[in-house]
Amino acid sequence: MEYPKEARNTVNRKGKMRGKYDLETVHSIIQQARVVHVSFTPFPDDPFPVILPMIGIMGSYARPSAGLDEPQECYLHGYVSSRIMNVTKQTVVDGKLGLPVCVAASRVDGLVLALSPNAHSYNYRSAVLFGYATPVTDVGEKLWAMEQITNKVVPNRWENTRVPPNAAEMSSTQILKVTVQNASAKVRDGPPGDELVDLKDDDVRGRVWAGYVPMVEQLLDPVASSYNRVGEVPAHVKEYIEVANQEELDYANKLVGVVKNATE
Amino acid sequence: MEYPKEARNTVNRKGKMRGKYDLETVHSIIQQARVVHVSFTPFPDDPFPVILPMIGIMGSYARPSAGLDEPQECYLHGYVSSRIMNVTKQTVVDGKLGLPVCVAASRVDGLVLALSPNAHSYNYRSAVLFGYATPVTDVGEKLWAMEQITNKVVPNRWENTRVPPNAAEMSSTQILKVTVQNASAKVRDGPPGDELVDLKDDDVRGRVWAGYVPMVEQLLDPVASSYNRVGEVPAHVKEYIEVANQEELDYANKLVGVVKNATE
Repeated sequence: MEYPKEARNTVNRKGKMRGKYDLETVHSIIQQARVVHVSFTPFPDDPFPVILPMIGIMGSYARPSAGLDEPQECYLHGYVSSRIMNVTKQTVVDGKLGLPVCVAASRVDGLVLALSPNAHSYNYRSAVLFGYATPVTDVGEKLWAMEQITNKVVPNRWENTRVPPNAAEMSSTQILKVTVQNASAKVRDGPPGDELVDLKDDDVRGRVWAGYVPMVEQLLDPVASSYNRVGEVPAHVKEYIEVANQEELDYANKLVGVVKNATE
Repeated sequence: MEYPKEARNTVNRKGKMRGKYDLETVHSIIQQARVVHVSFTPFPDDPFPVILPMIGIMGSYARPSAGLDEPQECYLHGYVSSRIMNVTKQTVVDGKLGLPVCVAASRVDGLVLALSPNAHSYNYRSAVLFGYATPVTDVGEKLWAMEQITNKVVPNRWENTRVPPNAAEMSSTQILKVTVQNASAKVRDGPPGDELVDLKDDDVRGRVWAGYVPMVEQLLDPVASSYNRVGEVPAHVKEYIEVANQEELDYANKLVGVVKNATE
């Protein structure tokens, strides 16, 4: 399944090579990002959009088993009296579809060092989605989203904490649901690529090093809080650190393989 | 020096503790980010803002020695026929100050795991700035900005590549200069913090592990391109990898020290 290509979400620059519209690619990039950037226009007479870093997940409350390759909504976590929540509530009262937002997630996977500055680049995964945000009012849906969002920080974390949330926590937390209108992703996962004019220049080739520097996120050893009383770091935390770190190295190694196997 | 607090850039939620307005903090976060997110409204009749991931630097062409604690502009790198460049050019023609943009940079430094899901958080550094973007037309300023941007990927990279850019490269590259109107930063660099209700609950304290998982970006061993002919990885690349990785570990260790030394 693919998002329709419209003016708003079409990848223009190098779009044939790097643009992606399939739900799985777009949703995976949002889902993997530790932080998404959410843009909206909060002040009607102000021309400046605002960007907020937030935690977001992809999911479907109506069909929780829906995979990343199926239609999903984007759920964003926030504080109830924050500006985006207030603006969203006002927007819905006006009888509109919700607050128009753009949600973006980007990951740099490595530094692409070429012969010319112009051919320098990053390998990266980025996604952007456009949709209408509304506050989640159904208590079941809100609890479900809070659980997904906590488990995005560390899988299975929710069931290993003090749950359910109490009344004060439920009322201070606001979840926004973004109904996606369209979306796209842009991915670069290739080797350095220089122009023919430089590849043919023996002087340039003889003195400029061209190559790739992979970059990974790594989680380090967990540290107990001063008020922690549990003796051992629990399995869900220990195992997640290992799995997450290995996944980072696996993706980095895959891209290194692409660089090594490229033909000039 | 501080940016003035206005409605647009004021940090509301936990603003007293985490909000920062000094130029040095804001500029440093933008400068360190490998990618910034830039938001603008490209289609006049469309309510959706767009977010683009771009490479951005802070700097002052008029006073290149200006430190991060002094007034600077934000320079963004792009392709000449991209949407943001076209929209910016149209905006300037209209006789306005430029295209209103919001530039955001965020870094997650670690996972804050608390007793309650509600007290879960990240340690992070984030900054946002608002300003008017205009295309850089002065050739000297454009070349200077291109050099700064290349050297952001790897310090001293510019002088170790094939420079100067040729005519085709100069005309296909567009630099946007953002004149900053106001800005702010938000930083969390503390230990987990739970509510008294949970800290007093022996059952909760006896079964939920509370702690911190630091997260760092690490650059891995460089890989030569298939068309590279230079025998050794050059010093500017090798040394940068070491320095950047060590800086990441140093900051992570600093925050680990804060967690360990916290009193309940």
